[in-house]
Amino acid sequence: MELWYTEEHSDNVRFSIRVDKQLYSGKSEFQRIDILYSNEFGTFLTLDSLMMLTEKDEFIYHDMIVHVPMAVNPAIKKVLVIGGGDGGTVRELARYKTIEQIDLVEIDEMVVEACRKYLPTTTCSLDDERVNIYYEDGLRFVRHIENEYDLIIVDSTDSFGPGESLFTKAFYGNCYKALKEDGILVNQHESPYYAAYANSFKRAHSRIVEFFPITKVYEAHIPTYPSGYWMFGFASKKYDPVEDLKADEWNALKLETGYYNTDLHRNCFSLPNYVKRILEDSDE
Amino acid sequence: MELWYTEEHSDNVRFSIRVDKQLYSGKSEFQRIDILYSNEFGTFLTLDSLMMLTEKDEFIYHDMIVHVPMAVNPAIKKVLVIGGGDGGTVRELARYKTIEQIDLVEIDEMVVEACRKYLPTTTCSLDDERVNIYYEDGLRFVRHIENEYDLIIVDSTDSFGPGESLFTKAFYGNCYKALKEDGILVNQHESPYYAAYANSFKRAHSRIVEFFPITKVYEAHIPTYPSGYWMFGFASKKYDPVEDLKADEWNALKLETGYYNTDLHRNCFSLPNYVKRILEDSDE
Repeated sequence: MELWYTEEHSDNVRFSIRVDKQLYSGKSEFQRIDILYSNEFGTFLTLDSLMMLTEKDEFIYHDMIVHVPMAVNPAIKKVLVIGGGDGGTVRELARYKTIEQIDLVEIDEMVVEACRKYLPTTTCSLDDERVNIYYEDGLRFVRHIENEYDLIIVDSTDSFGPGESLFTKAFYGNCYKALKEDGILVNQHESPYYAAYANSFKRAHSRIVEFFPITKVYEAHIPTYPSGYWMFGFASKKYDPVEDLKADEWNALKLETGYYNTDLHRNCFSLPNYVKRILEDSDE
Repeated sequence: MELWYTEEHSDNVRFSIRVDKQLYSGKSEFQRIDILYSNEFGTFLTLDSLMMLTEKDEFIYHDMIVHVPMAVNPAIKKVLVIGGGDGGTVRELARYKTIEQIDLVEIDEMVVEACRKYLPTTTCSLDDERVNIYYEDGLRFVRHIENEYDLIIVDSTDSFGPGESLFTKAFYGNCYKALKEDGILVNQHESPYYAAYANSFKRAHSRIVEFFPITKVYEAHIPTYPSGYWMFGFASKKYDPVEDLKADEWNALKLETGYYNTDLHRNCFSLPNYVKRILEDSDE
């Protein structure tokens, strides 16, 4: 039998993966959750039919969303992760012995439960004693917090659907307030290539710059995401992501990584002209 | 009607583009040539059903294959382009007034003729008076040349099919001989992500290092190529692609580019760990 998962990257572009087996399908209060197995990518998770992660390349996303801020401020002790119910971001954070507390706020408990069962390679640190899981709306959670976290990571779905509120001014303003005076906010920042994603990318950036004095965007190649070219936002009260990189300190930790290294860290902030132009437009 | 062009990026992965119209289809002595129009990507060219270029993102490939070597040695005067019958590489080279001669060696005249008709945005400089077109096999052309070119650009198809001989030791050895004492060879270098391409990538690199004292690999994001993550090889007798970058000189030319800039130049040589490991394996 030929069984194919297909995602529409735009009305005119489709990306299809041959599926060996559907492992799980469920419908939560918030979204449809599917976990499938492919010979090419291993087990992969989709939400509302959109690709979230595959075993083959999730290391790229999780390396870049975690190690970039951690190498800028290795003294980070208290971290808030919003979204990220698959556990991959928590797994990478938990490798830092110096981190004391990781609060994970995931709106959808069914995502965590399904991933625990079928994606143990990403959920493996959710039971770490430093991790607290809250099944709540991220915007509501962060609203009443002040001066509490060193780092907030927004590991959200796209800017439509359940993740929508995590791309609003209200959310970014509350994140600013919830961060300490040298706090860092990192978020998945969509993609600059296909028009719908490029609009989300531009809008997210223009909203964040209203709150944070330092806002930069960095890139990674994630082949299973639309266009394969993905962006992250680095917003910060104090640290510049390149000038304040603590390369020697980070390298002394001897963490093995599949994608991230400190040379690449310096360089992933140098963007192509067409991407810079989108950001300049959004600054106006 | 639904009309879709589909490319298999591996046995398990398909990339599909909605086609508005098929503009041309021909069969030459060497390959099948198709030119189609898509609302998303504009006009695009396939050879033996594999994506060669689209109007939407060809600027990325052509920026990176031309401006990287030109910014390392702005004194380049005589250039050999092997492959590249679509004319995009010649177009970017022709923007440098200091280049005196561009020899284009394309095996398949039908590709050039079809592109002249349907892709004038890439062929627009093929009639520049500095350009000589030879419809010949690249390996045969380069075999009898010594100490002639400042730059050779291998703008080939993949390492299977008509482009196969352009990935052999015999070819790289002859390119070395055909270059002057400060000559540079740049080639499209496949991709590190899907296994078949990663093998070509590794093999190409291991063959080039046998001839050139300086061999580095650099990256670009080209969403319509398999995995969206593409590599170029920079092999050189004298110049290091990063240390010898003439950023000020290049910026003084005030060439407008959609992708390339001199910050990105420094940084596209910093590769992810998984790619570095493939290259290290191939050095053994």
